[in-house]
Amino acid sequence: MKLRVINGPNLNMTGRREPSVYGSETLDDINNQLRDFAQGQGITLDFFQSNSEGALIDAVHDVLLKGFDGCVINAGAYTHYSFALRDAIAATGKPFVEVHLSNIHAREEFRHTSVIAPVCIGQIAGLGKLGYQLAVEALAAYDNKGPLEK
Amino acid sequence: MKLRVINGPNLNMTGRREPSVYGSETLDDINNQLRDFAQGQGITLDFFQSNSEGALIDAVHDVLLKGFDGCVINAGAYTHYSFALRDAIAATGKPFVEVHLSNIHAREEFRHTSVIAPVCIGQIAGLGKLGYQLAVEALAAYDNKGPLEK
Amino acid sequence: MKLRVINGPNLNMTGRREPSVYGSETLDDINNQLRDFAQGQGITLDFFQSNSEGALIDAVHDVLLKGFDGCVINAGAYTHYSFALRDAIAATGKPFVEVHLSNIHAREEFRHTSVIAPVCIGQIAGLGKLGYQLAVEALAAYDNKGPLEK
Amino acid sequence: MKLRVINGPNLNMTGRREPSVYGSETLDDINNQLRDFAQGQGITLDFFQSNSEGALIDAVHDVLLKGFDGCVINAGAYTHYSFALRDAIAATGKPFVEVHLSNIHAREEFRHTSVIAPVCIGQIAGLGKLGYQLAVEALAAYDNKGPLEK
Amino acid sequence: MKLRVINGPNLNMTGRREPSVYGSETLDDINNQLRDFAQGQGITLDFFQSNSEGALIDAVHDVLLKGFDGCVINAGAYTHYSFALRDAIAATGKPFVEVHLSNIHAREEFRHTSVIAPVCIGQIAGLGKLGYQLAVEALAAYDNKGPLEK
Amino acid sequence: MKLRVINGPNLNMTGRREPSVYGSETLDDINNQLRDFAQGQGITLDFFQSNSEGALIDAVHDVLLKGFDGCVINAGAYTHYSFALRDAIAATGKPFVEVHLSNIHAREEFRHTSVIAPVCIGQIAGLGKLGYQLAVEALAAYDNKGPLEK
Amino acid sequence: MKLRVINGPNLNMTGRREPSVYGSETLDDINNQLRDFAQGQGITLDFFQSNSEGALIDAVHDVLLKGFDGCVINAGAYTHYSFALRDAIAATGKPFVEVHLSNIHAREEFRHTSVIAPVCIGQIAGLGKLGYQLAVEALAAYDNKGPLEK
Amino acid sequence: MKLRVINGPNLNMTGRREPSVYGSETLDDINNQLRDFAQGQGITLDFFQSNSEGALIDAVHDVLLKGFDGCVINAGAYTHYSFALRDAIAATGKPFVEVHLSNIHAREEFRHTSVIAPVCIGQIAGLGKLGYQLAVEALAAYDNKGPLEK
Amino acid sequence: MKLRVINGPNLNMTGRREPSVYGSETLDDINNQLRDFAQGQGITLDFFQSNSEGALIDAVHDVLLKGFDGCVINAGAYTHYSFALRDAIAATGKPFVEVHLSNIHAREEFRHTSVIAPVCIGQIAGLGKLGYQLAVEALAAYDNKGPLEK
Amino acid sequence: MKLRVINGPNLNMTGRREPSVYGSETLDDINNQLRDFAQGQGITLDFFQSNSEGALIDAVHDVLLKGFDGCVINAGAYTHYSFALRDAIAATGKPFVEVHLSNIHAREEFRHTSVIAPVCIGQIAGLGKLGYQLAVEALAAYDNKGPLEK
Amino acid sequence: MKLRVINGPNLNMTGRREPSVYGSETLDDINNQLRDFAQGQGITLDFFQSNSEGALIDAVHDVLLKGFDGCVINAGAYTHYSFALRDAIAATGKPFVEVHLSNIHAREEFRHTSVIAPVCIGQIAGLGKLGYQLAVEALAAYDNKGPLEK
Amino acid sequence: MKLRVINGPNLNMTGRREPSVYGSETLDDINNQLRDFAQGQGITLDFFQSNSEGALIDAVHDVLLKGFDGCVINAGAYTHYSFALRDAIAATGKPFVEVHLSNIHAREEFRHTSVIAPVCIGQIAGLGKLGYQLAVEALAAYDNKGPLEK
Repeated sequence: MKLRVINGPNLNMTGRREPSVYGSETLDDINNQLRDFAQGQGITLDFFQSNSEGALIDAVHDVLLKGFDGCVINAGAYTHYSFALRDAIAATGKPFVEVHLSNIHAREEFRHTSVIAPVCIGQIAGLGKLGYQLAVEALAAYDNKGPLEK
Repeated sequence: MKLRVINGPNLNMTGRREPSVYGSETLDDINNQLRDFAQGQGITLDFFQSNSEGALIDAVHDVLLKGFDGCVINAGAYTHYSFALRDAIAATGKPFVEVHLSNIHAREEFRHTSVIAPVCIGQIAGLGKLGYQLAVEALAAYDNKGPLEK
Repeated sequence: MKLRVINGPNLNMTGRREPSVYGSETLDDINNQLRDFAQGQGITLDFFQSNSEGALIDAVHDVLLKGFDGCVINAGAYTHYSFALRDAIAATGKPFVEVHLSNIHAREEFRHTSVIAPVCIGQIAGLGKLGYQLAVEALAAYDNKGPLEK
Repeated sequence: MKLRVINGPNLNMTGRREPSVYGSETLDDINNQLRDFAQGQGITLDFFQSNSEGALIDAVHDVLLKGFDGCVINAGAYTHYSFALRDAIAATGKPFVEVHLSNIHAREEFRHTSVIAPVCIGQIAGLGKLGYQLAVEALAAYDNKGPLEK
Repeated sequence: MKLRVINGPNLNMTGRREPSVYGSETLDDINNQLRDFAQGQGITLDFFQSNSEGALIDAVHDVLLKGFDGCVINAGAYTHYSFALRDAIAATGKPFVEVHLSNIHAREEFRHTSVIAPVCIGQIAGLGKLGYQLAVEALAAYDNKGPLEK
Repeated sequence: MKLRVINGPNLNMTGRREPSVYGSETLDDINNQLRDFAQGQGITLDFFQSNSEGALIDAVHDVLLKGFDGCVINAGAYTHYSFALRDAIAATGKPFVEVHLSNIHAREEFRHTSVIAPVCIGQIAGLGKLGYQLAVEALAAYDNKGPLEK
Repeated sequence: MKLRVINGPNLNMTGRREPSVYGSETLDDINNQLRDFAQGQGITLDFFQSNSEGALIDAVHDVLLKGFDGCVINAGAYTHYSFALRDAIAATGKPFVEVHLSNIHAREEFRHTSVIAPVCIGQIAGLGKLGYQLAVEALAAYDNKGPLEK
Repeated sequence: MKLRVINGPNLNMTGRREPSVYGSETLDDINNQLRDFAQGQGITLDFFQSNSEGALIDAVHDVLLKGFDGCVINAGAYTHYSFALRDAIAATGKPFVEVHLSNIHAREEFRHTSVIAPVCIGQIAGLGKLGYQLAVEALAAYDNKGPLEK
Repeated sequence: MKLRVINGPNLNMTGRREPSVYGSETLDDINNQLRDFAQGQGITLDFFQSNSEGALIDAVHDVLLKGFDGCVINAGAYTHYSFALRDAIAATGKPFVEVHLSNIHAREEFRHTSVIAPVCIGQIAGLGKLGYQLAVEALAAYDNKGPLEK
Repeated sequence: MKLRVINGPNLNMTGRREPSVYGSETLDDINNQLRDFAQGQGITLDFFQSNSEGALIDAVHDVLLKGFDGCVINAGAYTHYSFALRDAIAATGKPFVEVHLSNIHAREEFRHTSVIAPVCIGQIAGLGKLGYQLAVEALAAYDNKGPLEK
Repeated sequence: MKLRVINGPNLNMTGRREPSVYGSETLDDINNQLRDFAQGQGITLDFFQSNSEGALIDAVHDVLLKGFDGCVINAGAYTHYSFALRDAIAATGKPFVEVHLSNIHAREEFRHTSVIAPVCIGQIAGLGKLGYQLAVEALAAYDNKGPLEK
Repeated sequence: MKLRVINGPNLNMTGRREPSVYGSETLDDINNQLRDFAQGQGITLDFFQSNSEGALIDAVHDVLLKGFDGCVINAGAYTHYSFALRDAIAATGKPFVEVHLSNIHAREEFRHTSVIAPVCIGQIAGLGKLGYQLAVEALAAYDNKGPLEK
């Protein structure tokens, strides 16, 4: 099983950016721990980060074009207005799980809406770096058993 | 570590209720698998379900009064309008993780808002029964390491 | 044919409560006349009233669990905000007809919206106690002939 | 007792128009069955249909000018925006019951509002052709006993 | 000077329709008094009334096509939503004064908006039948002196 | 008959202020012509202008306290938000007619709402200085004949 | 004189719940002081608290059914959405005074609206436990002198 | 292939009406050029224009009843509020292309919404008389090749 | 203890203004009774009334500048829109209690919002002249015991 | 005549992306057919596609800087929120025609608004690949004859 | 060059009012420094402050009537709702620059809207007392060079 | 002192783009004058312009990563919707001053909102190229004296 992990705008600043909100580890720290966790489950991860909406759309398309089995995506603030990213996800036909380090539903009003949610299978918010790991677990389960045996 | 798992209105119908949305396992099935998982982590779970807002508020108060370390809550449709439940959660001062079987952000407009989110540490939606397990993992991590090492 | 008749909050005060709006007969008076009418049609009615949202949800679930053929429901003010009751009705998969003694569409703005309407087959409002009888007729017709030969 | 039955825009297409929503019988079929039902109750019906807002307003005025005892009205889509029709109904001072073949409260948002409801005594929606019959029953009861013995 | 006086939906019921709101004189009474007043000013009036939006649009077009110098219009409830009537008035390029018997700004919310106001030179509301006379005065002044010497 | 004419904020600049919108005559010019017109009708006018909301409220109270028969008021921009002025008018129990030089319903959105309209008997807008004269006529008619023989 | 004092959801946690907002005394402490105060005025108080909307509705009905002279109610978060509670209060025809420990108008937006206010005679907010005492004074004055000699 | 071309309110004034917005050719001019164009493509056109909503609904019904293959419709201002026209189009089950002479999306806010768009296959706006020709091309392509080979 | 009592617009008309809403005693009557009550509690009151927003702001500033211990304020209709008054109250850093003679939450929509509430410690509405007395009690308690022992 | 054809986000996935909505031909297929069509009209086309908002803005600027006569633009989802793209189009002063493969007005609410429409001369939606060809025709006509002889 | 500097409500409290928001210098301190700065540029300043909306309107009119070359205005909270002040500024036809000590766009929602902005040439917010100096610089540049050489 | 000056989308077209709104000098002209001004103050400026949201985010991050003392930013239309840019600014923890050539608060509604304002220290709008210079002054003052001595 091969999954892509896409991080959007400002996630490259994690660790330096408002640590009380986003924690003090860098994105590389988080990615390395996540890779280790996934390998333990027999899952290969491919990491991508960009601050550019266009580059993120390209990276989303590649989930389909390069044959990934699914994708974990933290679209950062694009979550709240990038209908272009939403259309990109829909275009792939692949399972995406949306992750947010902070609890977006407990912050400013504008962060309560995810325009990509309707084309993702689920959302994890507020659980910090653990959220990525849980999303990988969810995609692994999705892959093995159909629609998550809801 | 001792956690409460609270399920709200109509969750008692899980397995009988719109299986395409909520899956075909009963709440007992889900709870049993969850208990097994938690025991493997050295965590004791206490289950509660009610369709009554008042009974759910009482059960939330007990998270504080009976000394639980945290709570996994699927408040069902009360999620979207029960400010009383929200106040109950805030009254406990304990960590709550909100779970939804379906991806509420991808369904009807009224399901996109969680009035309890601002008093929970995080939210997991759309990952079916696995969501409960992930929430337990999150609370375990929260307990051990502070605010999730975000 | 066996139908349930569910009355929600404050309907127990009918006859005592704002008679110019809700009439001067008690709920028992109305129920007795309705029972007589239904018996004349070979239909058995089962009556339930509660002011508790949770108890009403349980009573709605029983429409499925106890094998009723359908349900007449006057959800009182819960009509306007109880998404939990809505989910309960949807969970049964049974035909529900919504009744209101007064014309809710001609009163305060907040009464114009029924959150349970999308999961009911129809609505009768403003026709007083006769509304219940008409709802029974509608369910009888529904039972015999498919979707009401619209 | 003499009642007018007014049908508004597109009802002349009933039977040909989206049968899954509006049924497969024509308006003439429905009217004939309704006439028979009313005659059995000693009630004379007068039918009118038009797609023109102005012609419908004239027909509503005639409920007063020609001495009808009341009116059953299915104003079609004019229900949702014709304040002129609303004023016409108010101008007559006669009892009107609003009927809709489909459950307007369960369809598109714009169909949830009836601008004529505040000047009608009640509304029946979603019960197909039976709705007309129930409305006739309501007006008969209204005529005999005052405000429906709510 | 030749002016057209156009009355819209339900104005033909004036005198019979809610006298506490609209007064007890008929439209003919009002028109006759208005004709006398205008003749005293050397102004010829042409009266038109219809309940049909289409017929009213035609009558508005005729203000241009038949060479009237201006128009007094009481568009009844069409005032609040007939963008088609608005476009018709704009199409004539002639001065229109909007009249309402009752004070529309003091009644239901929906009556507070006039969609034809942006294409009329002014509005008179709440002054009963006198409003028509004042509108004629305004058009006479407009004709003689340019934009009303505001 | 004795009427007060109250002009609100910025009306003292009339003639100097945006002449294309408000005309080129000064408020004194307008008042003098209006006094002459009223005298011809046997009506005494009392003029007041202020830019201060508080002074205007005092002047409105005086309509009652000093025994005027009614009031013509152009409240300028206070029209759109001064609920205090509205309460002052209501406190007098006297007939007020609202006048606006320009057609407020054809200008910026915020000018479409009059918060004083619900406590005035009528409104005249867009007819320039003539509007004051028409308002005096309306109050004269109101005084002589009851509610304007609507 | 006999008054009921009804406390709604989460008030049972007073003293334990967010002391900076709600104070540090328990509901029993507050009730006892209030009982003493009332006795000094010759007023008997009856206390009720529940977290259940249905139980609160029943308790409100009892204000009428058990012959109380009025009621002090702190409906907690139900204040903001329980139209069922509002209908219950209206059904009693008795004077209710609404109390809130904190200043609800100075907190989150959703707390600014009271759906029960339109059926209560008044509201006291933000004055802590003293609010209950002031409400008792208000009801005593109401009882003795008519509508509070406003 | 036989298509109907329906023009709504005020289009009969084209050429006389605000030429800077709608051009200077009459509707007859436009229709004649359009007929010639269609004939060159082997398509027969049938023209209809009315200012009456009811007559337009009848004309839309005839697209089905008289066996046209599709329809080009410029509904004028009815575009923005005539839900009755929308239902009429839906009732035919035929392909409709919506045309607007001016770019409605670049004008007043109320013109940005088309309530008939959801039941049309496409929309052309702002391209003047050419829009009709393009719409005929689109319907010809639709007829020949299925859903436009999008 | 020295408190200021500030009354805003139209309160000078109390007793003459809509007695069914505001009672029949004058503001002097109310103030005199209030002075007596306060003296009995050892509290000195200073009264101020104005219809002018600016004068009220000055009076509010004086609560700080002249060393009052707190203030009872009935800002009349300025309550609903005077952000300037709100800033004035905040500028003093003193405790203010907001009083309204009528129950503003049970009247027109625009009266439901208090823009000064967020900078006051509490609000009393609908309890007539008694409200002022209760507010004095609240400020006395506030002064003596800290934040009202909520 | 030289025109630019700009395609925005996700259009590069056409043919692979939701074929039921967007058709099964690739963007290259569509472009090739469009080039052939244009050549037949003596028009040279220049194609550009990008998923990046910034690159699209650059490409729009080039319509002016490189001397194109106009531009056909399908901005994909940027249509609905890219005010930056809108400003870019306005900056060129060149004629743009907006094209959408699907009927955006018949899809989700957020797709009904085009923020670029106010700076384009027209819009074609829902006509699939044919829309591009029609847009080219419109620009050709625009070039030759002024504002489209509307 | 002669400029007026107008300060609105509560600015007289600067230095005493919420120093963390508005700084600790008094308005006199700020004005004195500003006068010195302006003199260095050969500009004469005239200072005015009032808490009264009416007095501010008079002071704004004087910018025209007394021949000032422009005006720096900090309208305090009137910025957000005083349409009367807006009309006063427009009436002068002079250049106004709006200044705010704090960054109004970063504070409460109601402070984000300036109703006077549309009639000012520019706005400076959040730069403390320096804002006044920058505004003087802007007006000096405006005077000398036309529309600021944007 | 070292400051970055960041210009966003379409600013590269300044001088060529709608000169009546944005002036006729190019961005290079403006930057050169600004560099000269800053050098006179002992401040080094670093200029960056891009039309790409991603590139702008990177440039904002560099304000922190490359050790600038602050930043002047004109985010163009991204000002109104780029929450990603907002997060980027917040991530730096550095002082930003927002500049707009035109008075955004006096233009289209969508330009009235700045989503980056809450993370900037201030905003200057409508003062053309001078705005940049004033922003540099503000940052210089901020650097030297703390929070601008408000």
